[in-house]
Order: sequence, then structure tokens, then C-alpha cells
Amino acid sequence: MIDYRRLRVALLGAGSVGSQVAALLLKHGDELADRAGAGLELAGIAVRDLDAPRETDLPRELFTTDAETLIMGADIVIELMGGIEPARTYLLQAIGAGADVVTANKALLATHGTEIFEAADQVGAQVYYEAAAAGAIPIIRPLRDSLAGDRVQRIMGIVNGTTNYILDRMDTEGAEFADVLADAQRLGYAEADPTADIEGYDAAQKAAILASLAFHTTVPLDAVHREGITHIDASMIESARKAGFVLKLLAVCERLVGQEGSEESGEAISVRVYPALVPRVHPLASVHGANNAVFVEAEAAGNLMFYGAGAGGVQTASAVLGDVVSAARRHVAGGVGVGESTLANLPVVEIGRVVTRYQVTLEVDDRPGVLATVAGILADGNVSLATVEQTVIDPEGQTPGSARLVIGTHSAREKDLSETVEKLASSGVVERVVSVLRVEGD
Amino acid sequence: MIDYRRLRVALLGAGSVGSQVAALLLKHGDELADRAGAGLELAGIAVRDLDAPRETDLPRELFTTDAETLIMGADIVIELMGGIEPARTYLLQAIGAGADVVTANKALLATHGTEIFEAADQVGAQVYYEAAAAGAIPIIRPLRDSLAGDRVQRIMGIVNGTTNYILDRMDTEGAEFADVLADAQRLGYAEADPTADIEGYDAAQKAAILASLAFHTTVPLDAVHREGITHIDASMIESARKAGFVLKLLAVCERLVGQEGSEESGEAISVRVYPALVPRVHPLASVHGANNAVFVEAEAAGNLMFYGAGAGGVQTASAVLGDVVSAARRHVAGGVGVGESTLANLPVVEIGRVVTRYQVTLEVDDRPGVLATVAGILADGNVSLATVEQTVIDPEGQTPGSARLVIGTHSAREKDLSETVEKLASSGVVERVVSVLRVEGD
Repeated sequence: MIDYRRLRVALLGAGSVGSQVAALLLKHGDELADRAGAGLELAGIAVRDLDAPRETDLPRELFTTDAETLIMGADIVIELMGGIEPARTYLLQAIGAGADVVTANKALLATHGTEIFEAADQVGAQVYYEAAAAGAIPIIRPLRDSLAGDRVQRIMGIVNGTTNYILDRMDTEGAEFADVLADAQRLGYAEADPTADIEGYDAAQKAAILASLAFHTTVPLDAVHREGITHIDASMIESARKAGFVLKLLAVCERLVGQEGSEESGEAISVRVYPALVPRVHPLASVHGANNAVFVEAEAAGNLMFYGAGAGGVQTASAVLGDVVSAARRHVAGGVGVGESTLANLPVVEIGRVVTRYQVTLEVDDRPGVLATVAGILADGNVSLATVEQTVIDPEGQTPGSARLVIGTHSAREKDLSETVEKLASSGVVERVVSVLRVEGD
Repeated sequence: MIDYRRLRVALLGAGSVGSQVAALLLKHGDELADRAGAGLELAGIAVRDLDAPRETDLPRELFTTDAETLIMGADIVIELMGGIEPARTYLLQAIGAGADVVTANKALLATHGTEIFEAADQVGAQVYYEAAAAGAIPIIRPLRDSLAGDRVQRIMGIVNGTTNYILDRMDTEGAEFADVLADAQRLGYAEADPTADIEGYDAAQKAAILASLAFHTTVPLDAVHREGITHIDASMIESARKAGFVLKLLAVCERLVGQEGSEESGEAISVRVYPALVPRVHPLASVHGANNAVFVEAEAAGNLMFYGAGAGGVQTASAVLGDVVSAARRHVAGGVGVGESTLANLPVVEIGRVVTRYQVTLEVDDRPGVLATVAGILADGNVSLATVEQTVIDPEGQTPGSARLVIGTHSAREKDLSETVEKLASSGVVERVVSVLRVEGD
């Protein structure tokens, strides 16, 4: 056995990911040392409560409540506590003390990423966060390194397992949102308070991180447009299916050029999270259950997709340990850490300036002239009609009943579209706007 | 504009990938400098013939036939000549002169990788080869870095675009191999001499590289078992379809444990390329056309898939330029290159010791007792029968005709299976062994 230089690894947090990281580090220590070129000694695990129940059977003597002392003696600090504080303070302390840091904390990076990356840059430390973007799916290195010589045009990501699980079951079983959510909570796919998932907050944090990486810029979390899936019902999924689509909660990061983008001639980006219609033939359409996938369109590389488990303790631990080995290799190789390239400083446009296709479903009076009125309002609003399908809702009735219009538009500006939908709603011929959904990936 | 330190980049070769690399480097130079933290100056392009026609319009003054002088003055050398010599000599010269090197040369790495990596290790240089494993798909960094803390159990890769294009068209159109191959040659998906693709040599080189990375070991090319697809006909594809499978040329890299593997109790690996039956529900089954995908099963991360274009000049150029930016960042950060971890030294077992499921199709006499005889031979050979389907080939005939038996086996050792098939062939009841195919991914 080779007598490697030993690196001291401090672990902050022993939840479902943390306890798996500790267990794997202890189990595969020798093998990881061979790969890293350095021994990885788990110096301790900082927790709030020494007596809390743990998922794995870890040596009692590793636990401590004194995070700061643990951090000060470490070469590599792994932060898996979650939340903003004290995680932020601990990470900055670790960086200040010259350690490399590994974190899976997407909330922290999406809100305080710039502060943490700048602190690391100043001392030549490195911040690793593979587990923060898409769980176990290796996406950070592909975006930051492998595609660094290319220009990413668009990312469409299924980056939240809970919502994909819910939408997939609604799609395959015709079930209603509330029923599947309750089931998902019972099975552990959704939290008791599911807000972060079903309202798109988790996906928005990941979208900010992915867009920052893909476009080598800084995306503040509040610049990410966010919509959840709580308004999606079985009938919307059913119409989507009939039209050849599947509904997915997507994180879309897009490069805009020229007039569509910034005030000037330069480039801009759009970062948004919303449920969207995806053609069934698109590779993202076959991402089932709680799986995640990131679809990347790049100028030279073309279309790429990265697929895998988006969450789960042991899966996420894989990404964390990959980062630990990378950090150890860097310690052995020497040199300063490679900073984030955030020099692009691209403006993030508001949702109103985004251009996509839409599917608008209306309930209208079933009488002559209605379609002409609707078409006129669309034309006036700069929304070009691509397809229209009319179904009479009550064909049995003697008096004029209602009809359902499913309108597919050509690419239109979000602002034009939403103004047009408002005009339709108050036009007198539209009884109800059933749904307005974007179409992505066609 | 920032006044970066300038790095001199030498390009060897100006074929379809090389000319795209040069064009993109010139077009996006400023943006790449921002990302790399260093200016990337294309110092020259070494070619054999200054007057050969080029795919892109590159400045004439960049071209030179004096590769050695160009190499000696470079910080980063990109080798895109292909072939073993003089590529090998030039790469070793570049490493000796202290340059980092980028190559897409899978034939060279699969045969002389150890020599090149060791030379780089000795001087602390780095070898980048993202484009050598699966074209534009970022797979090197995920395997070497992101999954370095995990244990890869199996890789199944569609790593050759030509054969996937051919098999996909045979599957969707029911066409014959020779017809689709001719069409693929006409359309530029296959070379005039298609041997390297259709006989699996290209896939075997990639399999050796992927297995070396995934298992942190060294896999010599001649340890890779290789079979091509020239014997695949429309009827085999058709039977596969009926049984719920699709036929793909797979590169399989597998970790074997204990008695299945090496002589001793330790671990071993198997690396093999052959056409195999993949269940239609498997993510690899939906990889169409000339696309590639690498499916990875890891102990902690679970199942991952990486999908994209496997070849093409501009796509491959993306991977090469990502490597160039990485090399430049390392020059800026300092430190020595991170060597390949090849300390595992896992034995590669011969194909006879591999365990998979099989589908064996036989033509047998259609008379009583034949199935019992066949089942007896299987049982004697340690091959356990999972499913059997019998179809009478000539139901109209008065005399006993032939029947077709499609036998699905449970997991069996390749050696047992092939000996059993030989016994079946000479048993007197089997008229013809129609096909023997492995089943992967179920």
C-alpha cells in the first residue's frame, strides 16, 4: 500500500446525504486514496445534536458540535447542512482558512454564490458544487469545462424529481394533481411541505446555477422567472397528450441575440422555470418518474442530454465524493483553484421579452363568427396562429352550447401573448381561458 | 478588454475536425480568452500538403509543413492528424517540451496511451482527450472526475455513429444491411472502406478508453473482445423487434467480482464490443440515427446516461476546444497536471468468462421429442432456459417440416453457452443455428 500524504476532510451535516458521504468515505477510503493520490481522513462530522438518530451506523467519536474547530483543521470542508446560515459563515471561514470547499447547497449558491466564489478566488481556493445543480447527474464539469470552448444556446432541464414524479404519474395514470401529491408525500418523493418543489423554487435555484455556468455569467436568483405546477389538472395533461405533447416542469436557460434581448445590440439571456408542453418525440419526454435530465443545445456540439437521478441521499453522495476527489487531486497537483468565469455579465431579460410558441385553450360560445373574432384579436396582438382545433362541448343541446378552441401559435413574445389573452378574456365571445401553456423543444 | 497573458496554440492537422477547431478558435478567440483567463493565439497549423483543399477559409499564413518547429514554440499542442505515426512522436515531443496536449486520436490512445500518459506524468504535463471517447459527448470529465468518488459497475455505450445509423435504419425500415450500408456511404455516414466502423474496431478503441477511465485502470486494446455487425440481417432485427428488443452495437465495460473474475478473490473487468439485444424500454433503445450515448451504472449514483452526437467535424471540435480552455486554465492556475489514476491494475477477463443472457434461434425438425432433446442439451451445459417460443416454418407441408425455436436463457457463462450451441448444432435435431445474440440492459 502506498503511503500517501493525508488530507483532513471535515463534514458539516449528517442528514441523508451527509451520512452517506461519511459511510462511503470510510468504506472506500483506500480506493479513493489511489484515485486522489492522497489519503482522505474523515476528521469529524459537525452536527447540531449529537444524539439525533442517523441513517447509517457511523463511529460515535467522529461527531462534534464544534464546527468551527473542525473547519480550522481541515484541508477539505464538505458542507451538507443546507440553508443559508450558518452554512454561509462556515464556508467563508473554511475558504479563509485555506481549505477547498465542497457543497450541495443550491439555495446558498443561488443567493450568495458570487460572495463565496469571490472569497475563494482571492485566496486561490476552489469551490466544488456538482451536487447542487442536478443531484447525481454530472453536469457542472461538462458545462464549465467540456463545453468551455463552445457556445451554449439553450438548456432545457428537468431538474426537480418531485414535480417530474407527479407530472409523470398524472400523464400515465390520468390522475389529479392533489391525489398524486398526497401519494408522493406518503412514498417519500415529496416533503410534508412541498412548496419548494411544486412552486418551482428548487428548480429556479438550479436554473440560476446552470445558467451561470452555461453562459459564464452571474444570474441572480430574483432574475429567474418562476411558475409552479399547482394549477395543472388532469384535463390539461389529457389535452397535451392528444396534441402529441407531455407536460414537464422545465428550467429553460436561453441565449438571446440582438433585438430580442438587451436594450443595445449585445447579447442577453433568459432564465425561467415553468410547466411547458414538450413534444413526445423529444428526448426529455421520456424522462420518467423522479429522474432528472438536462438537455443542452450548443453551437458546435449540437444537442446533448445528461440523464440520471436528480436526488436521493446516496446518489447525491456520489457527486459530493467526486468533488472531494477532485479537491484532493488539486491539493496534490498544487496551483491555485480555477475561478468561475463570470466575465460575460450578460443581462437577464424579463419574462415579457421571451419568445416561445404557445398553446392557448379557450371555452367559447359555439356560434358563427366566434373563430373570426378570436383570430382577429390574435392578429391585432402580433400573435400568429399556427393551428386551431375546435370541439363542441355539448353537441346534444338544442340551444347554442360551448365549444373548446385549442390554439397553437407560432413564436410570439410573452408580453404580446399575455396582452392578447387578456383581450380574448374580455372579448365577449370567450367564456373561459382554460389554459395558456408554452411549448418548448420543438 | 483585459490584457491577458497569451498562450501559443499549435494545431497539427487540418481535416474536418482540425479546420473547424481553427475556425472556431479564430472566431470566438476573445470569448474563449475570458473563459480561460488567457489569450489563445493560434500559432500555426501543421499540414502535410500546403495546397490541399480545406473545408473552411483559414488564413494561408497559418499553415506550415514544419510541425516540429511549431510544436517547440507552443504552450498547448492540439493533435488532430489521426493515425499512430507521426502523431505519437509529435505528442511525445510536445510533452517533452513542456506543452499540454489535446488529442482526439482514439487509435493512438488505445494503443500507446500508457506511454503518453507516463511521459506527461514525468514532466507534470496534462493530456486532454475528450474528443477521443464519444465525439462531442462530454464523458471524460464525468468518468474521471465527477464519478471519481463512486464505483462504476457497468458502462453500456453506443459509441459508433455509423453502425447505429445502419442498425437504426434496419430497425425502422426493415432494410437489409448491405442496402443501408451503401446508402450510408452515399450520404457520408460511412467511409468508402467501412471496416473500422462495421467490424467494431472504432468502438473497441473507445471501449478501451472508457473502461480505463471508469475503472481507473489500464485496458490494452487487445484485451477488448470485438465483434462487428456484418452478419446482422433483416430477419434478426425483425425477431428482435417481435421479442421487444432492438439490436445495438454496444461497448460493454463491466466490473466483475470474485469467482466470476480473476483467478484469485479480487476484482476483474470485462471489456467487449458486440451487437446485443437491448429491451425497447431501455434508454439506449431510443438512441436513433448517428447519435451516440453512454449509459453508466454506478454503485452510488445509480443509472446515468450521456447522449449526443458521436462524430462530425464541428461537434468534435467543441470537445477539442473545451480541452484547450481547460489546458489554458491550468497554465494560468499553475501546478502540475493531474495524472491518470491507473493504480487499480484490474485484470481483463477473456470473453469466455463473461456472464450474460442470450437469445438463441434454431431451426429444428418439427417432430415430437425435439424440444426435450434441446432442453436436455441446455441443462447439461449449465445453460438455464428462461423462455422458449416455437414457430412452425412450413405449416402447409404434409411431411414433417421445420420449426423455429427462439430460446431465451437465464444468465449463463459465455464459454458454457458457446459449447452448448456447438453441441446443439451437432445434435441431429438442429438443422441450423440461425443466430446467437447476447441480451444487455435488462
